[in-house]
Amino acid sequence: MKCDGAGEARMLDKNKKILIVGLGMIGGSYAMALKRLGYSVSAITRSPSTVEWATEHKIIDKGFCTVDPEAVAEADIAVFALYPHTFVEWIRENQHLFKSGALITDVTGVKGSITGTVQGMLRRDLEFIAAHPMAGRERSGVRFSDDGVFKNANYIVVPTERNTPEAIETCKALGRTVGFSNISVLSPEKHDEMIAFLSQLTHCIAVALMCSNDDPTIKNYTGDSFRDLTRIARINDEMWSELFLANREKLLCQMDRFSESFEKLRRALEERDADTMRSMMRQSSERRAEFDK
Amino acid sequence: MKCDGAGEARMLDKNKKILIVGLGMIGGSYAMALKRLGYSVSAITRSPSTVEWATEHKIIDKGFCTVDPEAVAEADIAVFALYPHTFVEWIRENQHLFKSGALITDVTGVKGSITGTVQGMLRRDLEFIAAHPMAGRERSGVRFSDDGVFKNANYIVVPTERNTPEAIETCKALGRTVGFSNISVLSPEKHDEMIAFLSQLTHCIAVALMCSNDDPTIKNYTGDSFRDLTRIARINDEMWSELFLANREKLLCQMDRFSESFEKLRRALEERDADTMRSMMRQSSERRAEFDK
Repeated sequence: MKCDGAGEARMLDKNKKILIVGLGMIGGSYAMALKRLGYSVSAITRSPSTVEWATEHKIIDKGFCTVDPEAVAEADIAVFALYPHTFVEWIRENQHLFKSGALITDVTGVKGSITGTVQGMLRRDLEFIAAHPMAGRERSGVRFSDDGVFKNANYIVVPTERNTPEAIETCKALGRTVGFSNISVLSPEKHDEMIAFLSQLTHCIAVALMCSNDDPTIKNYTGDSFRDLTRIARINDEMWSELFLANREKLLCQMDRFSESFEKLRRALEERDADTMRSMMRQSSERRAEFDK
Repeated sequence: MKCDGAGEARMLDKNKKILIVGLGMIGGSYAMALKRLGYSVSAITRSPSTVEWATEHKIIDKGFCTVDPEAVAEADIAVFALYPHTFVEWIRENQHLFKSGALITDVTGVKGSITGTVQGMLRRDLEFIAAHPMAGRERSGVRFSDDGVFKNANYIVVPTERNTPEAIETCKALGRTVGFSNISVLSPEKHDEMIAFLSQLTHCIAVALMCSNDDPTIKNYTGDSFRDLTRIARINDEMWSELFLANREKLLCQMDRFSESFEKLRRALEERDADTMRSMMRQSSERRAEFDK
């Protein structure tokens, strides 16, 4: 687990040909960033209207709605921005099309259950290095692509012992090139623990909060705090339920830790124990202040 | 409970002399907005450096660190931006200084426990009309004053049967004049229920979340969702513990409703019940989408 030093700032080799598989909001934002810098970018994605939109808006050079063998064979680096199970299936069915030495990476939100599976089934002359861009939007689809979301955001490279130092460096360079400000390295185990807390638990909270009150007039009385806290309550249910299930045990554990802490605050309020409430508030303030430095 | 019609848009009479009592972030932002529009604004606040800063930055005309009888006697409208118990004490000790007909309002975050007390003890020739500006910052102190936070924000007038229609209208006009976009009217009972859910519960969640994890490295891996959700975890422990206790029963009730909803999601995950998870996610998405219209 380490962060980028100031000295290390290699960008991706300009001649690398990039293939994006799955052109949603994140895949589209990668394409946008890379195309802007002059890289050759092609894409494979399901919907013809996505290909049309992306070509018209010049965020890709070429796009295909089916697995085009030539497009796959040309790629030096392929970025997979699919649902976890679709990614695994795609590799199983189409990995024979890659040229020898191609590097595969992804943007999947869970790692433990995916990375081993993909690395285990991959041809010996290919390499898969997992990555997680900590950026997104509460809207999905290529039309919401915006490479501005990578600015000041965190990018996590998630190697295993099967990865080469070269692939790790290239993956970091990719993150830096598309515009991430802070590049870190974590093991799949640690990544999934971190993401259960930082991303999945927060989505659980926002969803549970919105589901706990059906008063339609609340929008007349909200302040920023409620709006900020529930922004992520607009959620792609198909993708997130899959991500939750793929990281089930770690997420359950984080949910229980949160419930315990919430219950402690509730008990303090019930018992009119202002000291405990205030000490929790001071602790949360101190910890949160670290993020604003 | 109703919102402003487009037709009704009275601003505060330009000749009204305003007194702000308690020049923190919110009191300071009221002063800033009113002074910018040419109103005569004086302030009473505890700290000499606050008075100095506010005078230098021209957000008040005159400031006092003690209860200046002349400043109180001059006021047509007094806005109290103090902690709940300090507000009640101030009125008890100093209400004799107001001129007959002066209108008193506030920005206090709870109403049930305060409004009746103040109205009950007030001289017959004065009137107190409660209000709650749904805007703020996670920093306190006059130096963080910014009347920009009122733009696109909600302002709630909280009258009781003791209030006159004129006072209600003047209070709405004050909200409109300092820059709020949406003015509503709620009873103290309904206000406190709403605020328990929209504001106090969200602060409880943010505090409990920050207290549930002591890993100092998390800041390298956070995305916007976590940062947005915990922005309000920086909290003034003295003020918020007092607000929580002043609205204890309603807040406990909202905490329990949230816990129930959170527990339902947890159980669905534990039982690998994707249908329930997805149906909660769709419900939360629909409800949250209402806020972005």
